[in-house]
Amino acid sequence: MKIIYSDRQQLHCVPFEVLGGEPTPNFEQPQRALQVLDALSVRTSGPVLPPSAHGLAPLKRVHSPDYVDFLADAWNQWQATFPGKAVALPFLFPNRGLRQRLPRHIEGRLGYYAFDLSVGLTATSWSAIQDSADCALTAADLLLAGECSAFALCRPPGHHAGRDLMGGYCYLNNAAIAAQYLLDQGQQRIAILDLDYHHGNGTQSIFYERSDVLFASIHGDPDDEYPHYLGFADETGAGEGVGFNLNLPLPLGETDWSRYRQALDSAIERIQAFAPDTLVISLGLDTFCEDPLGEFSIKSLDYLEMGRILGGMGLPTLFVFEGGYAVDALGNNTANVVEGFEQKG
Amino acid sequence: MKIIYSDRQQLHCVPFEVLGGEPTPNFEQPQRALQVLDALSVRTSGPVLPPSAHGLAPLKRVHSPDYVDFLADAWNQWQATFPGKAVALPFLFPNRGLRQRLPRHIEGRLGYYAFDLSVGLTATSWSAIQDSADCALTAADLLLAGECSAFALCRPPGHHAGRDLMGGYCYLNNAAIAAQYLLDQGQQRIAILDLDYHHGNGTQSIFYERSDVLFASIHGDPDDEYPHYLGFADETGAGEGVGFNLNLPLPLGETDWSRYRQALDSAIERIQAFAPDTLVISLGLDTFCEDPLGEFSIKSLDYLEMGRILGGMGLPTLFVFEGGYAVDALGNNTANVVEGFEQKG
Repeated sequence: MKIIYSDRQQLHCVPFEVLGGEPTPNFEQPQRALQVLDALSVRTSGPVLPPSAHGLAPLKRVHSPDYVDFLADAWNQWQATFPGKAVALPFLFPNRGLRQRLPRHIEGRLGYYAFDLSVGLTATSWSAIQDSADCALTAADLLLAGECSAFALCRPPGHHAGRDLMGGYCYLNNAAIAAQYLLDQGQQRIAILDLDYHHGNGTQSIFYERSDVLFASIHGDPDDEYPHYLGFADETGAGEGVGFNLNLPLPLGETDWSRYRQALDSAIERIQAFAPDTLVISLGLDTFCEDPLGEFSIKSLDYLEMGRILGGMGLPTLFVFEGGYAVDALGNNTANVVEGFEQKG
Repeated sequence: MKIIYSDRQQLHCVPFEVLGGEPTPNFEQPQRALQVLDALSVRTSGPVLPPSAHGLAPLKRVHSPDYVDFLADAWNQWQATFPGKAVALPFLFPNRGLRQRLPRHIEGRLGYYAFDLSVGLTATSWSAIQDSADCALTAADLLLAGECSAFALCRPPGHHAGRDLMGGYCYLNNAAIAAQYLLDQGQQRIAILDLDYHHGNGTQSIFYERSDVLFASIHGDPDDEYPHYLGFADETGAGEGVGFNLNLPLPLGETDWSRYRQALDSAIERIQAFAPDTLVISLGLDTFCEDPLGEFSIKSLDYLEMGRILGGMGLPTLFVFEGGYAVDALGNNTANVVEGFEQKG
């Protein structure tokens, strides 16, 4: 399986986030991707290829044009207002009773386009963000060219990013961008299976009213887990999208591989019935038992079986890398999924 | 003029907020109220009196009952989930595309009820928050008993707090609570004049559809200034409240006393036409030229004239203390307003 990766993705590094009421070193660190790159390079068929530039057009098929233009220019606006301040960070947000009106000031714009403060922007963030999306698009090109699978090693991740909203370390929704691109190139139906520990609220919201993209997600119950405000089982789609959104929230602290696998079987059953041209897998490894941001108890060897099950579906498959914060185990766990997939695929 | 103040308000102290992309010592510090207390004690007629407890009922006339109950219990919920973490702080918020659904987890609840992260809660915050509202209510009692003016030295401040939303250092909307209380005790019309540098988005939103409370605010243009998502001139009320909301945003960096006074004259003209039973003044001193969070250039002596103008209206007047972060000058500036008011009142 070819791996798409860009070194420029290392350029994005936000020093802190706020967790447990305290400034905390940001968990979404550059070395995450390096660990995965190393493991995939050694243990899978490879090779590792750079992304090709696809420009802004495919991004604006999924995100609002004003949001994409904002992301590309936010650092300049920040620097003009806060010279010498190293990280552009939102700190207020237009919640209930406040207007959804884009203000002039960068401070107001950052919050308008965000839903948390994990999404800092530095001088070099945009290069990484754009390359991350290009990795997904380039991997999609491989599928279009006839490859049966590809791995987009994206960083920063994407599945929390909505049409015009960043959050959860995510800016551009790499999986959604790839899915839309495949449709725009002639495919008819795309299934997105989100295996990140956290609900892919951005992906869901982007395709919530559509029947050409099936979104299925297995994740920690949002009543108890980030992102808290989306990802419940009663969210089944709207309008033409009714029946094309499947959330399978699982309880924190009680979800091991056996329980997870039952949910995975349900999701796969729904996906097979949908008969997609391509399966996009938002692959987060924060379901791991030792993940600092997760409360499931999946073990490293379980990811081998997960990969075999995914490969056993026999679908053209595009892996898009999402979360996973147990950095020392992240490469091995990711490689286990891919290795299992290649054994069975 | 009697001053209402409670020492328990000192119990609320949040160590940091996020400004300019960095954790920053919180500007809303306990010594603010002490400075004002000292200056008012010396320079105005006084005396300083403690608040009397009014319970939760008057708070729930303005705020949603679930929000008040949340504030009272938030620390217990936080401690149960994050033992040893000293400050409960929101970090994600249900912006566009996310559900307005109260999650079970305290992390999700904090963000559901907040619009920024200036509003930490510590073990002793609720005592201060409740006493701050009781100061406003006790001052209102003085007006009801026939006093022509009173000063509620409230801390934390209140005017950013909405019906079920904390933000901008504000938890309970002291001015709105006092206004509603005066109405509930038989008054017919209340005018709230908000002179804080920042728009009183909470007060506006609470009374936006009502004609028995006139809200008039002079503040930094929200296109360029916090709270960014409310406070524009085109917000004139809705439903029965059309015509009872007056926003007078002024430009940052170009607003001195001369320009400010013109806006004040406009607001006063509207208030006099409304003929309120009581005038509630949300008094923020962050319009001061040296305020670290403001961009107006009002000078200390200007506050004397401001006080004379306010006193010249000849209305029963309840001062409710709001913002002001140039701590060394805060007592003097506040006392100037009250002294000017008493000269003319």
